[in-house]
Amino acid sequence: MYFNIERTTTMAHILLRMGTDPSEYIEQTQVHVKNPHLDTMEEDILYHFSLGTKTHNLPEMFGDIKFVCVGGSANRMKAFAQFIHNELSLPGSTDDIIDICEGTDRYSMYKVGPVLSISHGMGVPSISIMLHELIKLLHHARCRDLVLFRIGTSGGIGVAPGTVVITDKAVDHSFQPQFEQVVLGKVITRSTVLDEGVASELLHCSSELDDLPTVRGNTLCTDDFYEGQGRLDGALCSFSPEEKQEYLQTAHKAGVRNIEMESTVFAAMCRVCGIKAAVVCVTLLNRFDGDQISTPHHVLLEYQQRPQTLVSHFIKKRLGYIL
Amino acid sequence: MYFNIERTTTMAHILLRMGTDPSEYIEQTQVHVKNPHLDTMEEDILYHFSLGTKTHNLPEMFGDIKFVCVGGSANRMKAFAQFIHNELSLPGSTDDIIDICEGTDRYSMYKVGPVLSISHGMGVPSISIMLHELIKLLHHARCRDLVLFRIGTSGGIGVAPGTVVITDKAVDHSFQPQFEQVVLGKVITRSTVLDEGVASELLHCSSELDDLPTVRGNTLCTDDFYEGQGRLDGALCSFSPEEKQEYLQTAHKAGVRNIEMESTVFAAMCRVCGIKAAVVCVTLLNRFDGDQISTPHHVLLEYQQRPQTLVSHFIKKRLGYIL
Repeated sequence: MYFNIERTTTMAHILLRMGTDPSEYIEQTQVHVKNPHLDTMEEDILYHFSLGTKTHNLPEMFGDIKFVCVGGSANRMKAFAQFIHNELSLPGSTDDIIDICEGTDRYSMYKVGPVLSISHGMGVPSISIMLHELIKLLHHARCRDLVLFRIGTSGGIGVAPGTVVITDKAVDHSFQPQFEQVVLGKVITRSTVLDEGVASELLHCSSELDDLPTVRGNTLCTDDFYEGQGRLDGALCSFSPEEKQEYLQTAHKAGVRNIEMESTVFAAMCRVCGIKAAVVCVTLLNRFDGDQISTPHHVLLEYQQRPQTLVSHFIKKRLGYIL
Repeated sequence: MYFNIERTTTMAHILLRMGTDPSEYIEQTQVHVKNPHLDTMEEDILYHFSLGTKTHNLPEMFGDIKFVCVGGSANRMKAFAQFIHNELSLPGSTDDIIDICEGTDRYSMYKVGPVLSISHGMGVPSISIMLHELIKLLHHARCRDLVLFRIGTSGGIGVAPGTVVITDKAVDHSFQPQFEQVVLGKVITRSTVLDEGVASELLHCSSELDDLPTVRGNTLCTDDFYEGQGRLDGALCSFSPEEKQEYLQTAHKAGVRNIEMESTVFAAMCRVCGIKAAVVCVTLLNRFDGDQISTPHHVLLEYQQRPQTLVSHFIKKRLGYIL
């Protein structure tokens, strides 16, 4: 059996159990889908990847994956694949790295050695679709002992632009470490606490690198970029600069050091499926100082490289490239 | 003054008013931003479009826009731009249609005559960022008398695959025509009722076209593709096939004919900003019959053309190409 739900358990019971109890986080090496119906399907079409169990040999294509890195932008995740290819001194040219999902423009996916790099677009729903299909892919491919990273950009709160934030807890708009998922019209709540060991290891890695200012902190995940993040520069804004500052100050007091738009569902789904996961985002601005991203393009590009550099260092240490 | 919020009104009052009262829908021709802070900004950088008020002459670039069509996939929105270029017999080659947002890979944008075609990715947060920046762009460009269409794909409920659904009301998971927006940590509710006149005109257009089965109905907007839409084939599933069918039946009884992931925020934002808007989505499958999208690729491509054909017909009639 490739899932660990007791088939005799009532469905309502499972619904309540999934991800709500911290003690339920399972320390196991295999990727777990939590869906008793999957084994009854003759074929599984991963529609948004343009891949499937009948059309592709997923164990052969992906069975050796040990690290999965996901990020919003397709261009950035291609650049990361090329970067890690060079960092790991893999054979062949970076020009030969192809988009495995070229049959669709929903997501882009690149594989370099044991590293998979995938784009997820912007926002919780977009990354959620990708994660469902990724977790099924890793399960079908029988992957084991994985670490999954989200590397992204974010707005900082009380930290200098360019600071990398390793997320302790992904929190919702009320600063709670939880994700509300609607299932058949009912809201269930899942924990968003991330893996402590991977976060500590990443922070240690940052101390070995120059010019990589890094902190650990909570990450506020919102469902929009403007009103939800307290920006004064959207098409709609109904609050004052003082009310904005008050909200950001409250967030800072709750341990929030950056704001982005995907971390809660990422943490929640990885936790339920027993995948060790980390969120590593660079801050592009300090929201105490403004809303618009007016930093020169070449500086932003350098900032965006920082989570890649940190995660690459982690991977190289894990693989024994660096002692 | 380019916004119609009374500056003397308290902010709390504005917060309660925005989009909650049906009588507040303003019949006016100009695109309205509802943000009193925008006129104090020296420059407005539309970050996710890679455009700005200082770096680009927005009135010159976009002032003649009369129709804006948005959809999830960048490839599809490029194809729509090429299609409408030919339909309107515009001069020049479709090969010369460039991505105006080529400085970023967040969204793609194409302009052909009076038609703007933009991709928005998947899910409410992704389209919400695009809409904030689009509405500001249309405002900066001083556009008037616009119609905005979302043309997309969806899952059908009780209609044959390939049916085009023109949305009456975009509804949330409890089948209410409302969108919950978090502003500074507080939830406010906005109406998602769409323009009756445009929907009627679109249905009339469909009656003039062959092989374009079209219905009007409500559209369920969810925040994910699997658990939120009652699919049995995600990485996580905690309900039975019977519970799924019951949820879909309840949706059908509430007038829902299709499910997608962007319509509520699209309807809510257009309504608040006084933009006439419609949602036109084709159904790729009938969810009463299954969850997986296994229809052959060439059939899906033909289905995806249908909302484009319908909206093109509408545009051609409005422009006097067809009497």
